[in-house]
Amino acid sequence: MTAVDFEAFVERLATVAGEAVMPFFRTTIGIEDKGGKGSFDPVTAADHAGESAMRQLIKSTFPSHGIVGEEFGDEAKDAEYVWVLDPIDGTRGFISGLPTWGTLIGLMKGGAPVYGLMSQPFVKERFWGDGGSARYRGPLGDRKLRVRSCSRLADAVMSATSPRLFSGRELKAFESVEQTARLTRYGGDCYAYCLVAGGQIDLVVEAGLKPYDIVALIPIIEGAGGVVTNWQGEPATEGGRIVAAGDKRVHAEALEILAKA
Amino acid sequence: MTAVDFEAFVERLATVAGEAVMPFFRTTIGIEDKGGKGSFDPVTAADHAGESAMRQLIKSTFPSHGIVGEEFGDEAKDAEYVWVLDPIDGTRGFISGLPTWGTLIGLMKGGAPVYGLMSQPFVKERFWGDGGSARYRGPLGDRKLRVRSCSRLADAVMSATSPRLFSGRELKAFESVEQTARLTRYGGDCYAYCLVAGGQIDLVVEAGLKPYDIVALIPIIEGAGGVVTNWQGEPATEGGRIVAAGDKRVHAEALEILAKA
Repeated sequence: MTAVDFEAFVERLATVAGEAVMPFFRTTIGIEDKGGKGSFDPVTAADHAGESAMRQLIKSTFPSHGIVGEEFGDEAKDAEYVWVLDPIDGTRGFISGLPTWGTLIGLMKGGAPVYGLMSQPFVKERFWGDGGSARYRGPLGDRKLRVRSCSRLADAVMSATSPRLFSGRELKAFESVEQTARLTRYGGDCYAYCLVAGGQIDLVVEAGLKPYDIVALIPIIEGAGGVVTNWQGEPATEGGRIVAAGDKRVHAEALEILAKA
Repeated sequence: MTAVDFEAFVERLATVAGEAVMPFFRTTIGIEDKGGKGSFDPVTAADHAGESAMRQLIKSTFPSHGIVGEEFGDEAKDAEYVWVLDPIDGTRGFISGLPTWGTLIGLMKGGAPVYGLMSQPFVKERFWGDGGSARYRGPLGDRKLRVRSCSRLADAVMSATSPRLFSGRELKAFESVEQTARLTRYGGDCYAYCLVAGGQIDLVVEAGLKPYDIVALIPIIEGAGGVVTNWQGEPATEGGRIVAAGDKRVHAEALEILAKA
């Protein structure tokens, strides 16, 4: 396949996911409880429909590729090419009717993320990257994504989906970073990482992420000139505790605090 | 003025505000620090431009009306009709590039909120109400807004802009409500209240609000069949600690916990 064919294919994946998911947005139908009592983990019929649509298209186009997805588990995850899918990153936002969730589509080659796309079908914007460059298309037009310069944590606009992601020493470390940063905005989900790539947010600190929450975002952030690792400074591919920054100085300063957790 | 003229006028106010604000969205220009050292209070040039545009239109159309705004203070606030304006509710979201902020336009008559509109010019959606009914127009079409039924707090989807709004006994009370609710989503700002009206969110609990953060939202929530008061069950018009719910049973259950704070 040529590079152009491939980009068109990923766009098509995002389109079929969006078509499957959107009929469920801002309705109260299809809400299901995946967790046990007291551990509510929202999943909607939209998640299933979105992932099914993407899996079907991948299997019919690239039968040898592997797939890792939130809803239907892993298939051939040792293949050379593995797709990492999250039909709705930001399920709580989706359930609440907020336009801040997104469909994440990542591609790994030989265990390393090589391409990623985030699509928000209600706002109609997409962010994508290949580790070398990153782009945006949406209501503001078609733009190259580029992180902004930020020399120190004290000047950083920071984001986390929720402070409830953290507990114990982890929470203390997060709060220490938060208190140093200029301001923190909660409720970002995948958008926060894309806006690091877009030069609006300087730092995202999270914990408890799954590979499908982060793999697609790595080539976007790195393609825009940013850096994303776990709290030990290792590759972010496995999820867990994640720190992403536009400027490596802010990343280093945050890491110094977070590595102690 | 007839009812139709009035609705058209409020729409025009939202349009001029959006035109003034949007050029500043997702740029890094115009950020200003209103607070002192260590108390960062983000205000953008967009806030000033949006409020100026609305004030100018109100003054030239209704010279006898009063105006209360976030950016330029109060004028004739004892007039029979007083406009209550917040050009960008959700400044942190705006600064972060998230599409969750909104322009709030409220109208008080004799001290009571009689009309309110929330406009999100990036997503291109508007929520408005007059206390008796409420409507939505946006990417999903033109809809009547109606709260949904929710019989108890344990089933409620809850929202708050940030748990950092609370401290001391207030925080304890908030956390007690949060632990009972089904799930909580942070980062809602004005959107959360509009989505109570839209039947997506069941409960919003916040503190430290100004009148211009809430006045415009009251006729939308009440017009959709919901209830909004302060934590003592008194009118929400003055801001402060606010609790809004779609179902009065959830409101009562939350209030019982919050009134102790």
